[in-house]
Amino acid sequence: MNGADSLLATLAAAGVDVCFANPGTSEMHFMAALGQQRRMRGVLGLFEGVVSGMADGYGRMTGRPAVTLLHLGPGLSNASANLHNAKRAGTPIVNVVGDHATTHLRFDAPLASDIVGLARPVSNWVHSTTSSRTVAADAARAVQAARQPPGQIATLILPADAAWEPASGPAVPLPVPVPAAVGDDAVRRVAEVLRDGRRAALLMRGDCLGGEGLVAAGRVRAATGARLLCDTFAPRTERGAGRVRVEKLPYFAEQLVTALSEVEVLVLVGSKPPVSFFAYPDKPSWGLPERADIVTLAHPHEDATAALQALAEVLGAPDEPAGVAELAPPSVTGGPLNQFTLGEAIGRFLPEGAIISEEAATNSLGPYAGTVNAAPHDYLTLTGGSIGQAVPVAAGAAVACLDRKVVCLQGDGGAMYTLQTLWTMAREHLDVTTVIFANRSYGILRVELGRVGAVSSEATLAMFDLRRPDLDWVQLAEGMGVEAVRVDTVEAFADVFASAMATRGPRLIEVVM
Amino acid sequence: MNGADSLLATLAAAGVDVCFANPGTSEMHFMAALGQQRRMRGVLGLFEGVVSGMADGYGRMTGRPAVTLLHLGPGLSNASANLHNAKRAGTPIVNVVGDHATTHLRFDAPLASDIVGLARPVSNWVHSTTSSRTVAADAARAVQAARQPPGQIATLILPADAAWEPASGPAVPLPVPVPAAVGDDAVRRVAEVLRDGRRAALLMRGDCLGGEGLVAAGRVRAATGARLLCDTFAPRTERGAGRVRVEKLPYFAEQLVTALSEVEVLVLVGSKPPVSFFAYPDKPSWGLPERADIVTLAHPHEDATAALQALAEVLGAPDEPAGVAELAPPSVTGGPLNQFTLGEAIGRFLPEGAIISEEAATNSLGPYAGTVNAAPHDYLTLTGGSIGQAVPVAAGAAVACLDRKVVCLQGDGGAMYTLQTLWTMAREHLDVTTVIFANRSYGILRVELGRVGAVSSEATLAMFDLRRPDLDWVQLAEGMGVEAVRVDTVEAFADVFASAMATRGPRLIEVVM
Repeated sequence: MNGADSLLATLAAAGVDVCFANPGTSEMHFMAALGQQRRMRGVLGLFEGVVSGMADGYGRMTGRPAVTLLHLGPGLSNASANLHNAKRAGTPIVNVVGDHATTHLRFDAPLASDIVGLARPVSNWVHSTTSSRTVAADAARAVQAARQPPGQIATLILPADAAWEPASGPAVPLPVPVPAAVGDDAVRRVAEVLRDGRRAALLMRGDCLGGEGLVAAGRVRAATGARLLCDTFAPRTERGAGRVRVEKLPYFAEQLVTALSEVEVLVLVGSKPPVSFFAYPDKPSWGLPERADIVTLAHPHEDATAALQALAEVLGAPDEPAGVAELAPPSVTGGPLNQFTLGEAIGRFLPEGAIISEEAATNSLGPYAGTVNAAPHDYLTLTGGSIGQAVPVAAGAAVACLDRKVVCLQGDGGAMYTLQTLWTMAREHLDVTTVIFANRSYGILRVELGRVGAVSSEATLAMFDLRRPDLDWVQLAEGMGVEAVRVDTVEAFADVFASAMATRGPRLIEVVM
Repeated sequence: MNGADSLLATLAAAGVDVCFANPGTSEMHFMAALGQQRRMRGVLGLFEGVVSGMADGYGRMTGRPAVTLLHLGPGLSNASANLHNAKRAGTPIVNVVGDHATTHLRFDAPLASDIVGLARPVSNWVHSTTSSRTVAADAARAVQAARQPPGQIATLILPADAAWEPASGPAVPLPVPVPAAVGDDAVRRVAEVLRDGRRAALLMRGDCLGGEGLVAAGRVRAATGARLLCDTFAPRTERGAGRVRVEKLPYFAEQLVTALSEVEVLVLVGSKPPVSFFAYPDKPSWGLPERADIVTLAHPHEDATAALQALAEVLGAPDEPAGVAELAPPSVTGGPLNQFTLGEAIGRFLPEGAIISEEAATNSLGPYAGTVNAAPHDYLTLTGGSIGQAVPVAAGAAVACLDRKVVCLQGDGGAMYTLQTLWTMAREHLDVTTVIFANRSYGILRVELGRVGAVSSEATLAMFDLRRPDLDWVQLAEGMGVEAVRVDTVEAFADVFASAMATRGPRLIEVVM
């Protein structure tokens, strides 16, 4: 047994059952072990941003880390934008980054670089293995670090000789960390605040935006009238019919301030205080009114669901949550094609248990609105602001949830960063319908140019323009083996979308906006 | 005048005339200034690895830095693989990385990250601007840092408020650093070594692989019989008819050792001692025989061309260089399609002054051999080992050299990392013919798996396989507006390649291997 064998066996024993990989020469022993042991599904991505994005989608849906396999510093760099996003999402991921053999590093060969330095900004835990005899133990620690609540990025650097030299055997998995319990004092303090007559809101993030957490939050709302809020970019939210409705905070700074203007006390439930995404001259970054108090029910690493349940009990809340969404899928009214009419069609035909991975940017409001009373579903968003996340997240979610339909709602600009994902969708026959909102521009930048007070000119606007030539998403998708169609009316979209929802396998719909 | 205006004006005054950009909200004032001043060509890339790769190609061909515009930490991360390559190439590049306003950083908004930490491993110089009043001076320093011989990566981090707040005006460009002169002692020492009867070789890298440096090296060879060598991955080499021939060192460790086995003394001319690209169990990393001496004529930051000229004089070398390639383009013999028959066709039809950007991996030997006696041309290679470099380097070279044909020779695996470049080629109507060697696998990994002594299995080999589905490069290229054709015979390739050489504009040829 060599180091790579012991590493893979340790990961598998710790419950890691998928490897998203883009390998190179220094990772050959890892790949050999993967192929021999057959204890993990190996999923190839043709670019590392696809690999890390898929691991994000997988981790968000399972709560368990997949392992990524990356090729030295540049492979890690290519993965890093989506690792940044995943880190912001609190997704558990174990990265294995191959490195030159320890004996080779001194020669400063062309691919050598400061991998630890590259890893640190996108990781919560970084370790460089020094020997084939310790790599199994290092892997066990990496899994434990990744599972530290709410979920962390653990990066293990694997020199080639630590993979090919002999090892003693796999390591015993370490205990899985559990979320810290919230103390009774914190719960009682929040209960007092919610009873003191001030206008209160709960800002929720993490696991409590689903399952029992959401039910408990709805009971708190029933008892106190407190608003239930989530961030613009909540990693995962359970929504649709039968689920307690949560208000999503708006994106733009001034809208955020307006949305929060009546709040006198904000209760943090696994979240941080709301701030604007970007800064603007003469606009505030801080979302809350100055006079508003902040109290914390649960920090991100704590058990927010149990805390909400305890809070509901202390408040003597009714068993029935308030604000539960009814099943009332919209009608497809037709009319002009825009995000709202498209959103109606999406909400109409979305099947129960669907997973929506959304990065539609300037076209995100319509689909969000259209699915409020749709069949119950999960909603995943762009968590770290680095576009090119939603398509690989959709693929990873499909790997994680083989029996659920995945719908990816993606702007054309963002889609280009990780379009290689389509090939993996075809190869793995993933049940993902990708909708490309083709407005043929970096639409958000056209909006933001004026908002930041910068001078507009034709030459500047041309740099936000994705025309000349138009991207042809049908050809791009078919070039990677994904069946695709272009539509430019709501009726046509509704037809194709309904058909895609009723069948399995990868599909792409280009909607010309 | 705001900070962004002063920054752009300073860059322009310092001779920076192209901006390769992928902007976001925090870069709006930079984009406004770019559009208003119209002193730089703005070239949009739809992914940051395209942006940095284009800057590499531009810098290699002009010797001057272009500026890249990147969006915060994730934008820099996406650019970093090709920045790693460019750093290894010694290419001058100025990166401007937008950041949140200084007043916004404390809020840890979703896009915030440790940009300095990300920048350091891929930069030779990093600075984070603190004020709109200093950004012009910082820009002048960045250009000077980038031009430090042989060429450096200078990364300037630009907070949004340093761009939008008032500035006093542009800064005066700083003196352009020149390569350090090599002392007479070093030249005389090398002359002595070359006369002492030992078998000698010159390992050349940098500017001296073209122009007068190459002529002087040929004169040294004429006087002493010394072999002229270059690295497997020399950033830029002038080759073809009329140029002094230089032997390229082979890629694999054992072939490198064989190629150098007779060398008794190696003269470094802007280069470092040769080492293997990867480590292998039981194979050496060090290329030279143990007994071989190493002497340095010029370090990478020194003037190797002048040193070679001085050396030729000290040696009393003849005026005529030895080993000049004759003009003898190969015949297209036809026969089975493989890298060697394709190389003949490329060598046959390559026009004078062409620029070849090559990352054909397992198919690189044929085109290299086929162009030895082709019309004079430049040859650019994958310098840092991170695949996905050649296509954007080709685009950048085409931006730099408007009157020269660019030929990109690219493996299909590598092409997928930065395929978005094709759109920029179409948009800017760049005169690049991209040849995709479609072997539909990570061919090098099939070779390396056995070489490193790893166990092969069907499951492992399947992970190096780019089939199921096959990539359709004709659809991918046309989807981005580039005219494309697929061929599977040498004759068909020769026809389309000849036609592409005779016309202008972007073309893609998929060669099914």
